Amino acid sequence: MSNHYSPADIAITPPSATYQQAALTRQSQLTKPAGSLGVLEQLAVSLAAQQKRDKPSADQISMTVFAADHGVCAEGISAFPQAVTGQMIANFASGGAAISVMAKQLGAQLEVINLGTAYPVPEVGNATANIIDEQLAPGTANLANQAAMSDAQLNAALAVGDRAAERAAQRHSDIFIGGEMGIGNTTSAAAIACALLGEPASALAGPGTGLNAQGVAHKAEVIERALERHFAAFAADKEAGREPLTVLASLGGFEIAALTGALIGCAARGIPVLVDGFIVSVAALVAVRLRPEVNAWLHYGHHSEEPGHTRILQALNAQPLLNLGMRLGEGSGAAVAVSLLRSACALHNNMATFADAGVSDAD
Amino acid sequence: MSNHYSPADIAITPPSATYQQAALTRQSQLTKPAGSLGVLEQLAVSLAAQQKRDKPSADQISMTVFAADHGVCAEGISAFPQAVTGQMIANFASGGAAISVMAKQLGAQLEVINLGTAYPVPEVGNATANIIDEQLAPGTANLANQAAMSDAQLNAALAVGDRAAERAAQRHSDIFIGGEMGIGNTTSAAAIACALLGEPASALAGPGTGLNAQGVAHKAEVIERALERHFAAFAADKEAGREPLTVLASLGGFEIAALTGALIGCAARGIPVLVDGFIVSVAALVAVRLRPEVNAWLHYGHHSEEPGHTRILQALNAQPLLNLGMRLGEGSGAAVAVSLLRSACALHNNMATFADAGVSDAD
Repeated sequence: MSNHYSPADIAITPPSATYQQAALTRQSQLTKPAGSLGVLEQLAVSLAAQQKRDKPSADQISMTVFAADHGVCAEGISAFPQAVTGQMIANFASGGAAISVMAKQLGAQLEVINLGTAYPVPEVGNATANIIDEQLAPGTANLANQAAMSDAQLNAALAVGDRAAERAAQRHSDIFIGGEMGIGNTTSAAAIACALLGEPASALAGPGTGLNAQGVAHKAEVIERALERHFAAFAADKEAGREPLTVLASLGGFEIAALTGALIGCAARGIPVLVDGFIVSVAALVAVRLRPEVNAWLHYGHHSEEPGHTRILQALNAQPLLNLGMRLGEGSGAAVAVSLLRSACALHNNMATFADAGVSDAD
Repeated sequence: MSNHYSPADIAITPPSATYQQAALTRQSQLTKPAGSLGVLEQLAVSLAAQQKRDKPSADQISMTVFAADHGVCAEGISAFPQAVTGQMIANFASGGAAISVMAKQLGAQLEVINLGTAYPVPEVGNATANIIDEQLAPGTANLANQAAMSDAQLNAALAVGDRAAERAAQRHSDIFIGGEMGIGNTTSAAAIACALLGEPASALAGPGTGLNAQGVAHKAEVIERALERHFAAFAADKEAGREPLTVLASLGGFEIAALTGALIGCAARGIPVLVDGFIVSVAALVAVRLRPEVNAWLHYGHHSEEPGHTRILQALNAQPLLNLGMRLGEGSGAAVAVSLLRSACALHNNMATFADAGVSDAD
């Protein structure tokens, strides 16, 4: 496989051990029993090391929703019609979607990138104003029958994600959140994860937006067929060390490829990422398989209700912040978790020390 | 036992079924797969029913931290010296404690009520300005040897909590959070829970602010001794139907009694409560045992790292919003969870419907 996107050439430096140590020391001096803020302490320390600051911050949030259609919808694997992808792009831009409401609540910068829809995005007032048009094709090809995208499309999608990371860096973002929309994309994501983890389709196929048991069984059959079709290509590229990119091109999702590029791009630019649910975690898995150093830049917002998420989180050794039974996508679970990062930073930055407050430490 | 506080006489009406149904209908029309916002949907529906509004809110938060000392500290059951209770009251008031930082972040009203400390509250600048003085005694008596408080003190503490609920109502609070501070109060709370749940001390005694295994074992012995001493009083009042109040007076914590009064008082005034961790959950258990109708007004902020919390949550059939390994008290876990209520309300109130946005519903 020829490819212009060469993950091996991207420089990724680890978070700062010096700032990490300083943050740990500060945590031990704050007026609370040692460790009593639990994960919030770890979050503050991790963000301080990633941001190379004494006072970490989660104020400036960049959110990018990557949207695209999926040829595999021809197999009848979704509870919603394919036209919804374009309709939801308009809804993101006009402020009515969950991620739009969350972005407004958080004061976050929200971008919507259209990587290619099967149906046109409807005009709803000024709705299309905030949409970045990066359409590569009217959706991917049907992954059950052929490679979902060409090498050129894969490179382009990865680069779309990298440019989103670059814009987040230009805005001096404290945190990046990637979201996604694409009817059919839990099928694509589950297929990618099966290929990378060596799991059968039945282990990772789930209801997505609302399939019943029969629908889930059919979805698993479609994924199993795709895995069989593409197996030879994966095996060949495993030897060449480019397997994750081949998996991505074969089973793909333009938005999943773009997310992969965005996550690697954020790690390269030193921007911590708050990972959303099932789909974004699969992009994280691809990114970490390509470049294990990406892992040090990822926080996980929530444990999705989509059953396959558990296995993917396990493979990433990830402990998400929230488990609220959410399964919406768009970046919504990560958005809801932002406030925990903000609380962690506020407590770390603003609590008094034992010495400041004249409070006695433990006996 | 004679008692002027008569929980049976307090009127508590249930949340509105009409507003609950209207909120459920609205949730089904929002542009997302049905149920895909998980617990956030249930939260919005529950708050709408409790607040009797089409658009529920968690903007106006009243927080009251109830602080008091515990005679049982004479048994050496805490990792911190008893003087810390008063020192932390000053720290709450001067803005350096975790709950102070969270209150500022949330724009919440924070009150600190001193129900009685063994050591004076230090003057730290204007620190005492925000402290409400309701001192009943320099801490409770040692529950291992005698009743922790008199009936008069119990009544007074319950009334302190009820007045806090009344002030929250006067401020038109959307949510009430009760917090607590009192060196030794996990011993008192565990003892109360043991008495109400029929559990041995070993099942509910934990490290609190940081005891080692030997310290926890000693704490359990002290609790077991207290339970044996007070057993006859509990048995007598079980027949009279006032057992929870007798347990509270015998084993109690002025701050735990005040929290009990506050929770019942909030339910009576139609104010939803966001319950914090171990100590406040024990107060919730007492409140619900006295008046089961209180339960419909309680949300649970977080699952504490204090091991006994699991059993208490089980008894209350409670599913907390967060599980972040926190064990600080003060109301801090509930405070961190406020943002989830705010997200739930924003999504419920501001998302577009399928009809508004021109988005197709599921096939």
